[in-house]
Amino acid sequence: MQGTDVSMTTGHRREHDLLGDREVPADAYWGIHTLRASENFPITGTAISAYPHLTNALAAVKEAAARANEDLGLLAPEKADAIAAACREIRDGRLHDQFTVDVIQGGAGTSTNMNANEVIANRALEILGHAKGAYAHLHPNEDVNLSQSTNDVYPTAVKVATIIAVRELHDAMTVLRDAFAAKAEEFRDILKMGRTQLQDAVPMTLGQELSSYAVMLEEDQSRLLEASGLVHEINLGATAIGTGLNAAKGYAEAARGHLEDITGLPLITAANLVEATQDCGAFVHLSGVLKRIAVKLSKSCNDLRLLSSGPRAGLNEINLPPVQAGSSIMPGKVNPVIPEVVNQVAFEVIGNDVAITMAAEAGQLQLNAFEPIILHSLSESITHLRAACLTLATRCVSGITANTETLRASVANSIGLVTALNPHIGYTAATGIAKEALATGRGVAELVLEKGLLPADRLATLLRPEHIAGTSA
Amino acid sequence: MQGTDVSMTTGHRREHDLLGDREVPADAYWGIHTLRASENFPITGTAISAYPHLTNALAAVKEAAARANEDLGLLAPEKADAIAAACREIRDGRLHDQFTVDVIQGGAGTSTNMNANEVIANRALEILGHAKGAYAHLHPNEDVNLSQSTNDVYPTAVKVATIIAVRELHDAMTVLRDAFAAKAEEFRDILKMGRTQLQDAVPMTLGQELSSYAVMLEEDQSRLLEASGLVHEINLGATAIGTGLNAAKGYAEAARGHLEDITGLPLITAANLVEATQDCGAFVHLSGVLKRIAVKLSKSCNDLRLLSSGPRAGLNEINLPPVQAGSSIMPGKVNPVIPEVVNQVAFEVIGNDVAITMAAEAGQLQLNAFEPIILHSLSESITHLRAACLTLATRCVSGITANTETLRASVANSIGLVTALNPHIGYTAATGIAKEALATGRGVAELVLEKGLLPADRLATLLRPEHIAGTSA
Amino acid sequence: MQGTDVSMTTGHRREHDLLGDREVPADAYWGIHTLRASENFPITGTAISAYPHLTNALAAVKEAAARANEDLGLLAPEKADAIAAACREIRDGRLHDQFTVDVIQGGAGTSTNMNANEVIANRALEILGHAKGAYAHLHPNEDVNLSQSTNDVYPTAVKVATIIAVRELHDAMTVLRDAFAAKAEEFRDILKMGRTQLQDAVPMTLGQELSSYAVMLEEDQSRLLEASGLVHEINLGATAIGTGLNAAKGYAEAARGHLEDITGLPLITAANLVEATQDCGAFVHLSGVLKRIAVKLSKSCNDLRLLSSGPRAGLNEINLPPVQAGSSIMPGKVNPVIPEVVNQVAFEVIGNDVAITMAAEAGQLQLNAFEPIILHSLSESITHLRAACLTLATRCVSGITANTETLRASVANSIGLVTALNPHIGYTAATGIAKEALATGRGVAELVLEKGLLPADRLATLLRPEHIAGTSA
Amino acid sequence: MQGTDVSMTTGHRREHDLLGDREVPADAYWGIHTLRASENFPITGTAISAYPHLTNALAAVKEAAARANEDLGLLAPEKADAIAAACREIRDGRLHDQFTVDVIQGGAGTSTNMNANEVIANRALEILGHAKGAYAHLHPNEDVNLSQSTNDVYPTAVKVATIIAVRELHDAMTVLRDAFAAKAEEFRDILKMGRTQLQDAVPMTLGQELSSYAVMLEEDQSRLLEASGLVHEINLGATAIGTGLNAAKGYAEAARGHLEDITGLPLITAANLVEATQDCGAFVHLSGVLKRIAVKLSKSCNDLRLLSSGPRAGLNEINLPPVQAGSSIMPGKVNPVIPEVVNQVAFEVIGNDVAITMAAEAGQLQLNAFEPIILHSLSESITHLRAACLTLATRCVSGITANTETLRASVANSIGLVTALNPHIGYTAATGIAKEALATGRGVAELVLEKGLLPADRLATLLRPEHIAGTSA
Repeated sequence: MQGTDVSMTTGHRREHDLLGDREVPADAYWGIHTLRASENFPITGTAISAYPHLTNALAAVKEAAARANEDLGLLAPEKADAIAAACREIRDGRLHDQFTVDVIQGGAGTSTNMNANEVIANRALEILGHAKGAYAHLHPNEDVNLSQSTNDVYPTAVKVATIIAVRELHDAMTVLRDAFAAKAEEFRDILKMGRTQLQDAVPMTLGQELSSYAVMLEEDQSRLLEASGLVHEINLGATAIGTGLNAAKGYAEAARGHLEDITGLPLITAANLVEATQDCGAFVHLSGVLKRIAVKLSKSCNDLRLLSSGPRAGLNEINLPPVQAGSSIMPGKVNPVIPEVVNQVAFEVIGNDVAITMAAEAGQLQLNAFEPIILHSLSESITHLRAACLTLATRCVSGITANTETLRASVANSIGLVTALNPHIGYTAATGIAKEALATGRGVAELVLEKGLLPADRLATLLRPEHIAGTSA
Repeated sequence: MQGTDVSMTTGHRREHDLLGDREVPADAYWGIHTLRASENFPITGTAISAYPHLTNALAAVKEAAARANEDLGLLAPEKADAIAAACREIRDGRLHDQFTVDVIQGGAGTSTNMNANEVIANRALEILGHAKGAYAHLHPNEDVNLSQSTNDVYPTAVKVATIIAVRELHDAMTVLRDAFAAKAEEFRDILKMGRTQLQDAVPMTLGQELSSYAVMLEEDQSRLLEASGLVHEINLGATAIGTGLNAAKGYAEAARGHLEDITGLPLITAANLVEATQDCGAFVHLSGVLKRIAVKLSKSCNDLRLLSSGPRAGLNEINLPPVQAGSSIMPGKVNPVIPEVVNQVAFEVIGNDVAITMAAEAGQLQLNAFEPIILHSLSESITHLRAACLTLATRCVSGITANTETLRASVANSIGLVTALNPHIGYTAATGIAKEALATGRGVAELVLEKGLLPADRLATLLRPEHIAGTSA
Repeated sequence: MQGTDVSMTTGHRREHDLLGDREVPADAYWGIHTLRASENFPITGTAISAYPHLTNALAAVKEAAARANEDLGLLAPEKADAIAAACREIRDGRLHDQFTVDVIQGGAGTSTNMNANEVIANRALEILGHAKGAYAHLHPNEDVNLSQSTNDVYPTAVKVATIIAVRELHDAMTVLRDAFAAKAEEFRDILKMGRTQLQDAVPMTLGQELSSYAVMLEEDQSRLLEASGLVHEINLGATAIGTGLNAAKGYAEAARGHLEDITGLPLITAANLVEATQDCGAFVHLSGVLKRIAVKLSKSCNDLRLLSSGPRAGLNEINLPPVQAGSSIMPGKVNPVIPEVVNQVAFEVIGNDVAITMAAEAGQLQLNAFEPIILHSLSESITHLRAACLTLATRCVSGITANTETLRASVANSIGLVTALNPHIGYTAATGIAKEALATGRGVAELVLEKGLLPADRLATLLRPEHIAGTSA
Repeated sequence: MQGTDVSMTTGHRREHDLLGDREVPADAYWGIHTLRASENFPITGTAISAYPHLTNALAAVKEAAARANEDLGLLAPEKADAIAAACREIRDGRLHDQFTVDVIQGGAGTSTNMNANEVIANRALEILGHAKGAYAHLHPNEDVNLSQSTNDVYPTAVKVATIIAVRELHDAMTVLRDAFAAKAEEFRDILKMGRTQLQDAVPMTLGQELSSYAVMLEEDQSRLLEASGLVHEINLGATAIGTGLNAAKGYAEAARGHLEDITGLPLITAANLVEATQDCGAFVHLSGVLKRIAVKLSKSCNDLRLLSSGPRAGLNEINLPPVQAGSSIMPGKVNPVIPEVVNQVAFEVIGNDVAITMAAEAGQLQLNAFEPIILHSLSESITHLRAACLTLATRCVSGITANTETLRASVANSIGLVTALNPHIGYTAATGIAKEALATGRGVAELVLEKGLLPADRLATLLRPEHIAGTSA
């Protein structure tokens, strides 16, 4: 029963819905459904326009649906053209301020879909030469939403938006990976002590250490692409519960094809649309992969903070570039603020994964009503991880310097060198040397020589750090 | 080495810090530290001004510190007056747009503290008749931050802000509790089947059912106040690591006293400031209580959605007031969108609790560097829960109606009534009646009479639902 | 310095290590390292023998290492044979009670590895005709652990064990999937109302509904196999920190080959062993997939409990087979106890994922010291999910019956049928019909006819449930 | 319809229930309900007997109920006496092996309650001179469970068990707190550098550092007692859904009184029994506090591992007592295995909190069906935390030694000392000194003197570490 009263009050137009009449500002592209939703969900104060990828994706889906309806003779070409033109404007960045529903909303995304229907309808009406609200000429539900349900439009749009956001994250991870790899190459010959359980272990190079972070990122990128692949499966054409009610034969395939053309993304229609309409598995999976990325990033940043601890009462092995004064009271103090902010993003992502998990588990029967919080949490996780990777790469990793002498000295003094003698003097004798070195402060080599366990030249060869680190030619 | 060049370029002033010089917009109240932090933390795009309680609390702490410094002869009265005047303006809602650092930031809150120092210093300079940036007259670090460290200022301000936010949440919970209690009173005599494990159990009243939610909220409010009590313990005067370095004797007590006067809150200085400076226990505890509230709210909303399921193929026991059209494709459908949005807030709060937990666990030695994400997550949880309670109370609970006849019929038909006969015919015989009633579709009473297990009048008394529900006179 | 005193006290033998001497029961296959670990970690009271897959995997790795050492001329063939014979006994199920270290242990798995070294050494000594503890003939560290470190042995064994456990889970998921699929086929023609947001939506079949669970499981199985694939990458040959110190050239490849032969699993040696030694990404990933499975299983069980609610004051659409009396007080009550236990396993798995996430994040530098809790949590999640799938399949799903008439009636009475008329009478008119049907209790068809919106025969065709559910020929 | 056939087959007795007949081993104290439950829930392989506190608590509740029924004339004194005698045997540690139901079970605890009813009935029958299974003389449901429902018995028993377990945890925390406090006293005068964000900050004492952990524990103990207080509120007398059906007037109060006498615990009957029967708030709250304790313990252990890192390439400030050899390959290596195991318990507890949260949220209408996993997770968390505290206290903290000279030297060399000069030379000048000291490797004092910023004697006073640490007289 949505419609608009022609005799509107000055500055407002009157719209109708199931619940009655309401006045909407005359210049608003959104309508009565958006108005009610804005009143119903005053939760975060952040509108869905905060996610431009989603707004663009909604426009892409609506355009694809209009073209599919046109193909099937269900929508007049001039209506389809006007809808498509409105959608293209949105994807060009216009009208985003008209997407005003709160990011946390009830209704399984219906209000987001309605908001899109209304904005597109009203802009299309203008394009057709009608006033906003003249829904008799082009209707938000009957035309813009034709052959659609929130239950297929919303997840499809969320998926398209997510694919784009994930690509940006992937690019940022490449920047960070390259930064670590460049430093690993720069420090390839700098010997240092490796550590297990924070205790001195055996020698390695700083290059090997930093290289690990690059390798981790590369593996995570592979997992991210795999998870993103799952999101390419859409349910457009499923309509209400997946049975395809009110979608004409051929609509699903036509809409998918147009959506591919519009977005340039390879998309697949799910084989079982009833299942696809209720299943949030791909989102849970993707969030799990984001959590994995967060865990590794956080671990890497923990290491960077540890290795740069000091400058005098810490490990002091590397220096992170100073990017701001560290203390309001301690002069000259510089803190590892960039790794610290990345750690915090990681904690947020891990928390978001729990929220997404709970929301997915709470779905009931033919639909998950909680997709809006899934979208919200996923979007936060992806965009914050992206920002974290970029700031870590450009403001921290790329400026790392090594305290080469400190590192080299730690190897020379190390008791851990004795491990290399295991195969030659045995674990038992080596344990004795290690104990004595620790108790007396003496070096491993001198003790081995003193006890006549190995000849000097043989010993020198075995204890060569490059040999131990496995990096000698 | 922060300072300002007098010969500024047009539209900018030049400021100095540890890392060198930077140009700051001439009309900005923030300075070089804020500038660098804004560049370093481009994470969420949301500035700390999004938390007005925090901005106000920072101003309160800075005013209290200035007055304490004045009391101890460390700060000239005219400087203290100017600082206090600037702080009062902030607490009046002005200059909030100058608090521009991102809500997710590295540095343990240093950038937030520096942002406050700079804004207050520059506004105080203006009040004193100087230009912004003329730090020789009044300095962000040496005057506004005098006797302070981020490590005591920041947690203290976070706590003051949290106390205020928690009070608002408490008020909103009262509104919701009253709404449930009013409905419980309204429905006090409406009989219905109680359920355990979603299976019919024994009769109760709808009033008893809704009353439970009110009682839950009341208990949660008690826990919230207890948790909030812990947050009244502050560490102002601890300075860098809790040893109180650079804070004069008497400063901690004087600053606390002034902060009490300014905020009207009863505050306690922690007995062990070294411990208090590193400990996030009170935040973890409060978040745990918020999670408890979220769990109960979510459970209550699950119940409301279940009880109002239908209208024809569901339980259909109560009606939630329609607040918007439910579907873009299914005409006339009305969905429980308000409980749904509350569920989602609950999932967010539970996720935030994990983020806070990880951030607290990650603290090292004398400080937790991750308090900004703790503040961010706590603030979200508190303010979103508050909004959820209010929208649930006003747009859902207060408009609930009961389908009295449906409810009464479900009791009359119930097999669960047989439980009341246990003490009179025994569990074994009662089980036989129940099995037969289920298999045949017949009623409990007629089967008991048929088998001659109880006389009719006695049976009628025992099976009176009011008797079973324990609500008969 | 581990060794054994020949003059042992009656019933005990004396062993030595870094910390001194201790007496070990004479008949124990484990030795001093195991003894100390048992004293150090009295946490759960559950020994690692509770994970037979791990015990077997340790034996497989030790046998593979012995054979590789033999190939490279580092270990005498008779020693290798004895070690291999001991390992095969373990894999045959013997000596498991000698693996006594607690499942939650410090030391990054060192105690588990030492426990294996000691048991295998002592059993091999017996095979060679020596007394237990006669380590001069065959030594736990110098022979059984030759070319190895806990840091490569432990994760490799954990991975081998995990692969086997995951296969068993996969098989159990097939059993459950088949059970759902069989019921979906059985109920393929039973019409019912589909629901979104617990509100009546549009018709579907019970077969479509149950089929969704089978499809979900099938997708989850694909994800599980992918995640399991990641676990096939091992770091045997990495030794202490991944540099391969003390492992001879060719050892890694030889050991991997033997391990493939012994286990029948296709295994890959990680390209970067330094990275592989510290990275827990594959475990985090696998746990994320287990969490995904748990989410879906829990959602399915929530649905089963909802659909079987009643028998009289619930949806009462399906019946779960009764498997035990439901109540100690309510005679005849039968509860959905099997879905309930599955829900609880799901909650446990989701909690375990958080524990695994935190443990992975806490790794430092070249090693993650917290792999034991990762193993423990993963093992619990996998084995409990497997048990849950099997009990759900055999004790619940396979016995589900449908209340066909109840289901059919709910469709006939439904207002949701009006959705099918949208394309023919418009969303606005359809909304009017829906409102009137709800208010008056009348049927959709009679109202449409009364208003002359559609001719009777056309209407009958459009409202045919089979047509709406998309299942008509 | 539970009963027993007198003509039992050899070695078995035949029992009946709702579902039919089953044979039970003749010597089993448990009966048909336990048998079915054991078959239905083959999940973990761990029986509820693993929680002796729960088994004892069930016996206490059953004895209290029997006495209350006797008081009210509902149960013959000889039956009450026999039941009470059986219950006392259980609380003396006998018959625990008869509690065989799996710790993870469906049915809201019904199977646990039934298991208790059957064991107590059969033992009471023996005491009365009857055969096991002769339920005509004393019936598990009609006598042992008289006036009770699982829905009040189970949570009450869980609470009693939890109170006892929490007391043991509290005691263990005292042991750990005392260990930290003793070390803090021992190291009260040892100066060292304090750190924020892993960067050198300002001096403090090692005593101050370790004292923080003692203070944290003390605060956590207070919170634990508060949370435990909430668990003293029980719902005995609520029966099925809280309406008290089938419980005679006065029963709740009588049963509570007897339970107080039997357990020695001060217990309160909830004011609103309908609410109390469905509410898991006290468990969620307690779990939140356990999580808080875990977070702090984990943080403390992280610090201990960091401070003892080395011995040569680490901070090397303190030494943890060696408790086992650290490596199977690196001779002489000693690892912080005790803190590591505590970290892992903490991760488990944090994960359990998520499981408990989800289980609590999943409760529906008048009951939470998922209390068994709540009990299981809570029990694990409490008992593992207790074990962790004890092993940390006795095997680690009490043996900590300090590397006094290393610590003192780090203070002498520190740039952080310059902070103490802030009030005397200003933040700007101090920043210059700090930068120069870092760049040149020179000391703060010599630079200040060289620049003539302060006279030598004044400088010496200001830089005295005891002065800075706030520990000088």
